[in-house]
Amino acid sequence: VTSSHAQGRAGAPNADPRWRLALNQATTRRLSLAEAVSCCAQAGVRGIGLWRDRVDEAGADRAAKLVREAGLTVTSLCRGGFLTAATAAGRAAAIHDNRRAIEQAAVLGAPVLALVCGGLPPGSRDVAGARAMVADGIAELVADAAAHKVCLAIEPLHPMFCADRSVVSTLGQALDLAEPFSPHQVGVMVDAYHVWWDPDLEASIHRAGPRIAGFQLSDWVLPLPADVLLGRGHIGTGCIDFRRLDATVRAAHYAGWTEVEIFNEDVWAAPAAQTIATVVESYREHVAGVDRPAAPS
Amino acid sequence: VTSSHAQGRAGAPNADPRWRLALNQATTRRLSLAEAVSCCAQAGVRGIGLWRDRVDEAGADRAAKLVREAGLTVTSLCRGGFLTAATAAGRAAAIHDNRRAIEQAAVLGAPVLALVCGGLPPGSRDVAGARAMVADGIAELVADAAAHKVCLAIEPLHPMFCADRSVVSTLGQALDLAEPFSPHQVGVMVDAYHVWWDPDLEASIHRAGPRIAGFQLSDWVLPLPADVLLGRGHIGTGCIDFRRLDATVRAAHYAGWTEVEIFNEDVWAAPAAQTIATVVESYREHVAGVDRPAAPS
Repeated sequence: VTSSHAQGRAGAPNADPRWRLALNQATTRRLSLAEAVSCCAQAGVRGIGLWRDRVDEAGADRAAKLVREAGLTVTSLCRGGFLTAATAAGRAAAIHDNRRAIEQAAVLGAPVLALVCGGLPPGSRDVAGARAMVADGIAELVADAAAHKVCLAIEPLHPMFCADRSVVSTLGQALDLAEPFSPHQVGVMVDAYHVWWDPDLEASIHRAGPRIAGFQLSDWVLPLPADVLLGRGHIGTGCIDFRRLDATVRAAHYAGWTEVEIFNEDVWAAPAAQTIATVVESYREHVAGVDRPAAPS
Repeated sequence: VTSSHAQGRAGAPNADPRWRLALNQATTRRLSLAEAVSCCAQAGVRGIGLWRDRVDEAGADRAAKLVREAGLTVTSLCRGGFLTAATAAGRAAAIHDNRRAIEQAAVLGAPVLALVCGGLPPGSRDVAGARAMVADGIAELVADAAAHKVCLAIEPLHPMFCADRSVVSTLGQALDLAEPFSPHQVGVMVDAYHVWWDPDLEASIHRAGPRIAGFQLSDWVLPLPADVLLGRGHIGTGCIDFRRLDATVRAAHYAGWTEVEIFNEDVWAAPAAQTIATVVESYREHVAGVDRPAAPS
């Protein structure tokens, strides 16, 4: 499985929605890439979203081989972005790093590079200026994305991360940023945790259509912890209506993988096999539906 | 100063923007109403936004008298809302409570009742349903608001409060809810902390125009504390561009008061006179501008 853009983006991983499930490696953050791949294979999970730190640790070529030999598909690479910086040198360094990430995605056969666009530069209060930096940065990267057949997936982050992680906060805003470019080169990542609250969500998903480059799930659980980065829950433990969201994304003709990506210290502390079993069970219960008629396979 | 809707809403508190400052009572949460009024008078702050718990404690008639005798104006009453509930009885109780709040606002001469609309009912994942409950609740209250010459100010809360406090998350959404009604009866509260991140903010403020019934300030400070309700900072200590926001609100012809409303344990623990001095100084430095030419007075 070397990079195959058309296959990765357009092809359904399987006609049966129960088999669209992929593990995002962040959910088993303490495992090496080899260990995560092995756990997925044992649990019957056939797709995996990779993180660059673990890919670097394994080496990209070896990582690609490990995934391929386990019969898995790389569903995305996390992550590029962080395109906002106080200085021109800082912005140039970010572009350089994103080029490296695009190359790595190509080596891995990852059809999609998720972009967490960056927050306000230190000391800045200029959110419009930071958003302009994001637009400029994406424009600089599009040719590289095209050359490597990797789609840049702009990921709106929940507005509580606007100051420090992403000045792109809504799916509509991500679509505006993507608009000037081909959907093959610039798409959007729909992450349930980040967008579930948006009153325009369904309209934006409908508008997104072929720009939906990835779909990620974790649940909104209260209370938020002191570090709000780590407050996500297993699906079904919080207040997001995943069945409805999945139906909306599928009605927009997204036929790709659904990654479960959970940032949570308690989940990370649990045995990985148990975590993956919970991912599979909760996905079947709250998304792909064992309590409704199965899709024809 | 009994209720004077036209005066409260439309009249500028003073032509000099340095004198539009009001204290929202939540900023000095540990003070009684009499103490907060006295601190404002001593600091030269001429408007105060009241909270119902402290008004109940003093008695509404006595509270009105205290404010009046100190030469202050009541700028708003906080708060009504919480219109979402799992049962019809729960929703009826909420309507009853809001009617009481409207009456209290009238007694106080508060031109505006801020509405924190409510989150998802316990166990619910139906955010669209909760939003419909909010719309229904507001429709039920409009006649009371009109009869008492009190404007219901729908306050969008930051999306991190969508699950537990307000399914109304953006100014645009608040305006859609207000749209069917007269701006004298249903307006919006623009609270900087809740809306600063919104990519559509300036367009929504422009659209809001005469619907802007109140304007509140506190700063977005990182890191967020474990209880994100209490993470707000004195203006100028975080990342919000208040000068720009104030200019935008004023360009939309809002001529009312600017309340500083800070929920923060450290601010509450500080001596109240010091807190109010900081409110006044930071307002002048970051909003009304001592370092730019003063408006003609």
